[in-house]
Amino acid sequence: MVMEAIRVLHYGLGAIGSAVALLTATQRGLEVVGGIDRDPQKIGRDLGDVIGLGQQLGVAVSGDVNETLRRTQPHIVIHATVPRFHDIYPQLLACLNAHASVISTCEELVYPFGKEPAAAHELHRAAAQAGVTVVGAGVNPGFVMDLLPLMLTAPCVNVKRISVSRVVDATKRRAGVHQRIGAGLSLDQFREHVARGDVRHVGLPESIGLIADGLGWQLYRITEQIDPILASEWLTTPYGTVAPGQVAGVRQNARGWMHGRDVISLTWEQAVGSRKAHDAIYIDATPPLDMLIQGGLHGEHATAALIVHAIPQVLAAAPGLMTVLDLPTPHYRPRPEPLRARERG
Amino acid sequence: MVMEAIRVLHYGLGAIGSAVALLTATQRGLEVVGGIDRDPQKIGRDLGDVIGLGQQLGVAVSGDVNETLRRTQPHIVIHATVPRFHDIYPQLLACLNAHASVISTCEELVYPFGKEPAAAHELHRAAAQAGVTVVGAGVNPGFVMDLLPLMLTAPCVNVKRISVSRVVDATKRRAGVHQRIGAGLSLDQFREHVARGDVRHVGLPESIGLIADGLGWQLYRITEQIDPILASEWLTTPYGTVAPGQVAGVRQNARGWMHGRDVISLTWEQAVGSRKAHDAIYIDATPPLDMLIQGGLHGEHATAALIVHAIPQVLAAAPGLMTVLDLPTPHYRPRPEPLRARERG
Repeated sequence: MVMEAIRVLHYGLGAIGSAVALLTATQRGLEVVGGIDRDPQKIGRDLGDVIGLGQQLGVAVSGDVNETLRRTQPHIVIHATVPRFHDIYPQLLACLNAHASVISTCEELVYPFGKEPAAAHELHRAAAQAGVTVVGAGVNPGFVMDLLPLMLTAPCVNVKRISVSRVVDATKRRAGVHQRIGAGLSLDQFREHVARGDVRHVGLPESIGLIADGLGWQLYRITEQIDPILASEWLTTPYGTVAPGQVAGVRQNARGWMHGRDVISLTWEQAVGSRKAHDAIYIDATPPLDMLIQGGLHGEHATAALIVHAIPQVLAAAPGLMTVLDLPTPHYRPRPEPLRARERG
Repeated sequence: MVMEAIRVLHYGLGAIGSAVALLTATQRGLEVVGGIDRDPQKIGRDLGDVIGLGQQLGVAVSGDVNETLRRTQPHIVIHATVPRFHDIYPQLLACLNAHASVISTCEELVYPFGKEPAAAHELHRAAAQAGVTVVGAGVNPGFVMDLLPLMLTAPCVNVKRISVSRVVDATKRRAGVHQRIGAGLSLDQFREHVARGDVRHVGLPESIGLIADGLGWQLYRITEQIDPILASEWLTTPYGTVAPGQVAGVRQNARGWMHGRDVISLTWEQAVGSRKAHDAIYIDATPPLDMLIQGGLHGEHATAALIVHAIPQVLAAAPGLMTVLDLPTPHYRPRPEPLRARERG
């Protein structure tokens, strides 16, 4: 048996894509064969330098998707570009045409069957035909507000309602995160940004879709609401200060409705100065279940780890557009098994 | 597409077997086709009466395993007899010979590859040859001290140590539980019962084996220790009182060792008068993860739910002796999909 390394291509080298690449580059059993980005500042440079590895990888970042796929022949593409399914569809097709499986951090790909069922089924057929697997994954959506609460229903019966609360302290997060939660905006500015779609966490309806699919619940409606969290005191961040009355962050609540009741409720808060970071899950069932992760999961680190740990599972999965529900229970593994990649041929 | 119900046979109708049967009997999509027990007090009676359903099922409990398997032709056998793999081996073979898949509450079957690798691999071959799947499941081992902590490693990297603490309040549990934890014994009596193996929770080494297998950790040793928890005040239970100084319950700790360190530590406590019931998981990793389930999972109810929810997953799994690690993430489902059973042929 030849212990062939799993050939990994990184497509998208922003904050998340780079975080994942930093992990794959240091993981035994994985071979980073290429990097793709559209940023002219990154194209042509060594991938190790671009992701901040501290050493070169001997692989130049390319802006040419099809050429790179053809040349590097990856087993799997780690895809981390933008959050909307519609926008990444042609990017995914390019990977399928190169017969590469894909794990993507695209939030809407975690469960695209709700908003874009026709396109999702078309992608499923294309992936199945190409003999490769496409999965959307990450911490949220993909784990802490959907897969984990679903798993916690396993020891219960008569599940009546699932509520999840995720509170993230953004104080020390990168500047892009501060922008996305509207930190430092006035209330009027906040409303403008929300209307333009600049301030919004993408993925809560997808988490609800995934939960409902797992439970076999037929929801008739998913609602979502975004509110500002206002600072009640002066808050200092690495990027400046937030005055009392200014926006410190965002609170989003999404609900899935069945039989006239909100049977799934997900509340997501991210703000600077948040002192009560946590992930909490409550299952109203027989018996009820009340779970707390003190401090909560880190967004970026957790997503990078989840993506890397999903690699052998995705390579062993059935071809098609799959969800994390179709994979075995995810877990850490210091060295992915190359055997499974070989089994796929 | 014919929506055929999944045919379920209950093999073993003690406390756990009956609890599972109560669920399957009321679940749409499942058809209870038979019940097997060796207790002459149960044989010949209607299964609904034996399990306390409050209505008859039109199915008599039988003591003849092979005849019942032949006559009822189950898709799946819910097996709940005894905790030792060695003891259930011939029982499982009977099911395989009838081409029925098996979900068993047998604690050692959750991960038999550690203590009995030769017999486990033999069983795997037999199941694969028969084209059916055999899985051991339950809350502990099978979920809260192994699969759940494993899943919580998924958003982490550099996992160094996993520790789990499960504390169960036995005060209102059935008499058999009080016996098994030695409630009301003197210290000397406790030590005798432990030496005879009467007082012991089976499954901690199996949970460690499952975790290590998932992580790819090569442990060189698993150690286990049993200590009494002594009552510090008068405790009243439905079955009598426990005096100060008498045994209130048991504390078991099992550890998995690698590179000279205990990298997995599982502590299990069950006692009458326990006021701090919980399930706690701590992952020493980057970043660390600290989870608490307030009140903890109920032993029997959780096992019954987990077994029933595993039915469609086991019927859709590859043939052979599988573990919960080979199945998709478990979750509640009000109605199992009969389609999956049909796909197996």
